[in-house]
Amino acid sequence: MTVHLVGAGPGDPELLTLKAVRLLGMADVVVHDRLAAPVLALVPETVTRIDVGKGGGPGAGSGHTQEAINRILVELGRLGLEVVRLKGGDPFVFGRGAEEVLALAEAGVPWTVVPGVSSAVGVPTAAGVPLTHRGVAASFTVVSATLAEGRHPDWEALARVGGTLVVLMGAGRRAGIATALLDAGMASATAVVAVSHGTLAEEVRVRTTLGQLGTAAVEAPATLVIGDAAAVVLPPVSPVRETART
Amino acid sequence: MTVHLVGAGPGDPELLTLKAVRLLGMADVVVHDRLAAPVLALVPETVTRIDVGKGGGPGAGSGHTQEAINRILVELGRLGLEVVRLKGGDPFVFGRGAEEVLALAEAGVPWTVVPGVSSAVGVPTAAGVPLTHRGVAASFTVVSATLAEGRHPDWEALARVGGTLVVLMGAGRRAGIATALLDAGMASATAVVAVSHGTLAEEVRVRTTLGQLGTAAVEAPATLVIGDAAAVVLPPVSPVRETART
Repeated sequence: MTVHLVGAGPGDPELLTLKAVRLLGMADVVVHDRLAAPVLALVPETVTRIDVGKGGGPGAGSGHTQEAINRILVELGRLGLEVVRLKGGDPFVFGRGAEEVLALAEAGVPWTVVPGVSSAVGVPTAAGVPLTHRGVAASFTVVSATLAEGRHPDWEALARVGGTLVVLMGAGRRAGIATALLDAGMASATAVVAVSHGTLAEEVRVRTTLGQLGTAAVEAPATLVIGDAAAVVLPPVSPVRETART
Repeated sequence: MTVHLVGAGPGDPELLTLKAVRLLGMADVVVHDRLAAPVLALVPETVTRIDVGKGGGPGAGSGHTQEAINRILVELGRLGLEVVRLKGGDPFVFGRGAEEVLALAEAGVPWTVVPGVSSAVGVPTAAGVPLTHRGVAASFTVVSATLAEGRHPDWEALARVGGTLVVLMGAGRRAGIATALLDAGMASATAVVAVSHGTLAEEVRVRTTLGQLGTAAVEAPATLVIGDAAAVVLPPVSPVRETART
């Protein structure tokens, strides 16, 4: 009867919410992006799964088009099924979730949205990197490195804001991002922590600086945390591989 | 043996993570901020509770001082107890969690941190307000209206970034914030959604504009969402009181 847009969190299946698990238990169908296998293991075996690839995420390009995903959700909703649309992180943070809701609303299909732990916050936090810290960072800004339509953030304005900068999907474009921020006046010594495969067993953290980011070894997918708060080096929370590069 | 800093999410107890619930079930002691009653209902009755008031949150001023909270956590950890430090939202977003971790690390007390659904993301998402939207908002910035030490964000730079602006604890200072953003060049017609008591049964959403924000009726605590994404009016997700003010 209803299509529920549900955030699946950053990767660790224990970071799903109670509400996400309850809705998965009630679902007839789950429509999911490319998600970590341990998260998909929480989908009951009796539930039909439809994998729409990466189509709905910031790395769009493979998988179904967004228009095709919208159509699938509308058609499943019209069949009177209980549908969970499971999206990595939070459904309304770079997930094109609002477009899916607008399509459902236009078609008259009932919908709800359930927040999830956004990778933008959850990955740094789980890695021991605070996004705000008294006297160090009083704000944080989240951008995606892989913006559609060739749009770019105003890096100069971002540099001036002075808080922590979180760049999602930033591994592949880290050299260009570093150059843009350096050109915008950020110091070469600005601390950077790159977290690859955040919250999963294969998590890797690389500590570096803005000046060295372009040549640092960073595996995709990665979340980049840039700013003085990234220098607040907290001891490793769990035994993960950590590489210091300065 | 360990002090776990655990995010409790924005208010709805179903937005706790599986990991938070598991750790609460194993805890000897829970040290908590002022949290919604339904969240505290998830703490097993056999667990000792220590209420440290608002001391650890962005609205610091009543309750224990941060230094007192740090001491309590260190002493409980040294007693060999399993401690959950339950914090609203995410522990490292305006929660002074990093200060608590630094105190624990300095004292040699083992600690972990568990991300939660941050109010900065979860409250807008649950209210149907997307923080990013294709062609409308390609980034979002989170600030707290109640900054310690009289520090203020660079509103002019924030206005230039052009993404969505999320202001936490913003109800009381909304007039000053609106004036600062208007002075920084933001348009008076810029859309604003103010969500009070987000994700709880008593949630109230007020739709207004930057020009009208100062005189709009907004109950504390509130999350303000400012920018063109706030104009992407999605239908109400759940039956809450909604007031349109333009």
